[in-house]
Amino acid sequence: MSRTPIDQIDCGIAQTLSGVGESWTLLILRNAFHGMRTFDVFQTHLGISSSVLAARLSKLTGIGVFERRVSKADGRSVEYRLTKRGMDLYPIIVALMDWGEKWAPNPRGPRIRLVETATGRLVRPVAVLSEDGRELKAREVCPQPGAGASRSVRALLQARRGPAAPDS
Amino acid sequence: MSRTPIDQIDCGIAQTLSGVGESWTLLILRNAFHGMRTFDVFQTHLGISSSVLAARLSKLTGIGVFERRVSKADGRSVEYRLTKRGMDLYPIIVALMDWGEKWAPNPRGPRIRLVETATGRLVRPVAVLSEDGRELKAREVCPQPGAGASRSVRALLQARRGPAAPDS
Repeated sequence: MSRTPIDQIDCGIAQTLSGVGESWTLLILRNAFHGMRTFDVFQTHLGISSSVLAARLSKLTGIGVFERRVSKADGRSVEYRLTKRGMDLYPIIVALMDWGEKWAPNPRGPRIRLVETATGRLVRPVAVLSEDGRELKAREVCPQPGAGASRSVRALLQARRGPAAPDS
Repeated sequence: MSRTPIDQIDCGIAQTLSGVGESWTLLILRNAFHGMRTFDVFQTHLGISSSVLAARLSKLTGIGVFERRVSKADGRSVEYRLTKRGMDLYPIIVALMDWGEKWAPNPRGPRIRLVETATGRLVRPVAVLSEDGRELKAREVCPQPGAGASRSVRALLQARRGPAAPDS
């Protein structure tokens, strides 16, 4: 059976994954959010080959997640800076981190604590919230087809009976 | 240069990715949150081969994201049900969807609208929030090493200078 290439699936999640879904790409983005900007620094911390790193950075630049800039500090150096589109990936990165810290923790304690700089207080775990800010579980949310829903999404959502949770 | 296998990187994000980071795995989870439960239904909707789907479902069951149950409706049928650990992946799935709907939209409109069942109102886009519920951008958040931070994470965070944003 042939698969549809993921970038041709008309689904928001598939579209995101086709751009940034590869695991090393997400670790590059993690490091960008932690302040890394240059090829050498990415490579030293991630320990991946130059060719793999170059391909990932090129793709991320091509889809508009990074932009290349000449370093102000060193005019011979190129920096990879997150664009607005790239900065919008932050909730994904934090959600991935939250799950790993909860379900695959280091036995000594949290690896990283995310703190609001202005207040010094921990940020909240990422959650799905109602319009007025209550935390919602998947079983409290109903996906409905929007104006851009494909025929297969409409068929799927009409047949659904709630997320396959343990107690449903 | 040899890479460290991703499941051996002591980082919450890497740990999550080593379990569920493969793109087709995340699409299986998307479909589970949309109410799919059985092998045949997953396969029909995703169009992936039996062997690939079986491997993914086996891994997700092995790491405790799904549990296998005999169907109440059809005693010969096995259902894959999200566990508590699996349900906790929901914010990741919604964050991936939000980004794709914003940055790779279908020109006709949203593909899926997530609505709180009890109120009929749209849920909020997933965001990183302060303790008292304000939306925070990455540049307003500081990652600090926790008790479980590895030496390389400590070195990284000491050297950081904020996320590599366009206006920093």
